[in-house]
Amino acid sequence: MTRNEALLLKEYLAERKALIDEALAGFVPGEGIGPPDLFRAARYSLLAGGKRLRPILCLAAAEAVGGEAQSVLPVACALEFIHTYSLIHDDLPAMDNDDYRRGRLTSHKVFGENMAILSGDALLTEAFHLIARRELSPAIAPERLLAVAAEVAAAAGWFGMVGGQVLDVQAEGRTLDREALERLQRLKTGAMILVSLRAGAILAGASELQLSALSDYGKRIGLAFQIADDILNVEGDPALMGKGTGSDAARGKVTFPSLLGVEASRAEAGALIGGAVAALGAFDERADPLRRIARYILERDS
Amino acid sequence: MTRNEALLLKEYLAERKALIDEALAGFVPGEGIGPPDLFRAARYSLLAGGKRLRPILCLAAAEAVGGEAQSVLPVACALEFIHTYSLIHDDLPAMDNDDYRRGRLTSHKVFGENMAILSGDALLTEAFHLIARRELSPAIAPERLLAVAAEVAAAAGWFGMVGGQVLDVQAEGRTLDREALERLQRLKTGAMILVSLRAGAILAGASELQLSALSDYGKRIGLAFQIADDILNVEGDPALMGKGTGSDAARGKVTFPSLLGVEASRAEAGALIGGAVAALGAFDERADPLRRIARYILERDS
Repeated sequence: MTRNEALLLKEYLAERKALIDEALAGFVPGEGIGPPDLFRAARYSLLAGGKRLRPILCLAAAEAVGGEAQSVLPVACALEFIHTYSLIHDDLPAMDNDDYRRGRLTSHKVFGENMAILSGDALLTEAFHLIARRELSPAIAPERLLAVAAEVAAAAGWFGMVGGQVLDVQAEGRTLDREALERLQRLKTGAMILVSLRAGAILAGASELQLSALSDYGKRIGLAFQIADDILNVEGDPALMGKGTGSDAARGKVTFPSLLGVEASRAEAGALIGGAVAALGAFDERADPLRRIARYILERDS
Repeated sequence: MTRNEALLLKEYLAERKALIDEALAGFVPGEGIGPPDLFRAARYSLLAGGKRLRPILCLAAAEAVGGEAQSVLPVACALEFIHTYSLIHDDLPAMDNDDYRRGRLTSHKVFGENMAILSGDALLTEAFHLIARRELSPAIAPERLLAVAAEVAAAAGWFGMVGGQVLDVQAEGRTLDREALERLQRLKTGAMILVSLRAGAILAGASELQLSALSDYGKRIGLAFQIADDILNVEGDPALMGKGTGSDAARGKVTFPSLLGVEASRAEAGALIGGAVAALGAFDERADPLRRIARYILERDS
């Protein structure tokens, strides 16, 4: 990636993050008939400053096929709601028992376990509310919103993210071979990354060919991101990561570096990224952000 | 309620429960790419023999406006998925910390806390999958499925069931006045009962007037059910209830009997039921099951 490209991507990601952060804040009530503690807990986790990768991919996929980012923003936010709920529940004492996330205390450390469980439940539920409310997406045909709701539910459900989380819980302390590790990644993180791209594309009226190419791109970058995360966990700077590095190894977790070594993992991620960019061959310059995001995966430091 | 009517209702409820139980079992995978433990946990809670009130109301509302029960069965099952997830999460140690539910060990006692959290998450997510998959509801227009997805999400979310659960957690050990108790009930249990009726009616093409009448009915029976539950908690037979009676009082929980006394609570529920039946005045005999269900609320013993 050239310096100029890196600069363009940095600006693009910052602009997109600002757009998404503002929309997210607008989708969590400040007041209402519901209890304020719930909204405080939801806001705390939702507005904790994540990379917003999933919503950014959703907007970028919509634009790559000629759609407008603004019109898919509610669904993009729904994807971040689901990502946030999954982090809250993953951090619980009965799960990974993490005290810190993104450099801040985890939800259950601040609000208690019961509020952490419930705010996660609420974010998951409200994600589908964001997708299904027609008044939030007036320019989009209900058939498409419904198709996206079904795909998102499948990607987040028992054959997707939750299924992957169960595999992850069951894998602790055991050895996995490469096939099992890839399957775990595909379910736990890959499915939601893939559906983020597909949702944006479907909402923007992608053709079958376009959808298939974006899916190919999504599968490859999903796996590349996981490999890069694993490498960062071995090599990253704890101050930039917002959590301790080396934590995977300390837990005896099987990762791509632990199976293949760091260098072979990096080469593997590089090949996936090359394939992801190649999958976008038929797209014009409106897919440049997706191309740059793919190339950036191995160069990020947090 | 005459003896003949009670017999008709008993047969009706048994037939409906069998229909729903069979459909529910078909919607939880036995095998697949996901982890079997997750499905075992989901099946354990889902097929634990509940009354299936919410799906029964959904089917009955569809039939009351001239629709077919069979065509709304996937959405009816989605309502039971959501009800079941809420019970699993409510029973967790960080919440009500219950060891028994419906006479059996709770999910976290059998499968561990992590699997209980995840199977609840999966059931909630898969509920929206059941609603949004068009191939499961081929006779229903996508606009209607989308509207139902939005209403169900709202009823289950932070201005609905989860919000009510937060109020309930916060209410323990405090006193509530009657208004606060009704608000808690409306959110925690009322919203999902109401949306069960509305979902069936919307899917079956109800008119605005019909929808409004069924909503009126739903609000009243929702509150009546809660009052009757509270009375059963004071007076019921533990063997029939599947859990200890008197548990509300032992926890210092404010209930309708604790605020109004048992007799005034019974009178209040009776008035609500009368109002609920009156709201169905414009419906023909196809609404008889709904009328009988309303009258049955105060006569049930578990």
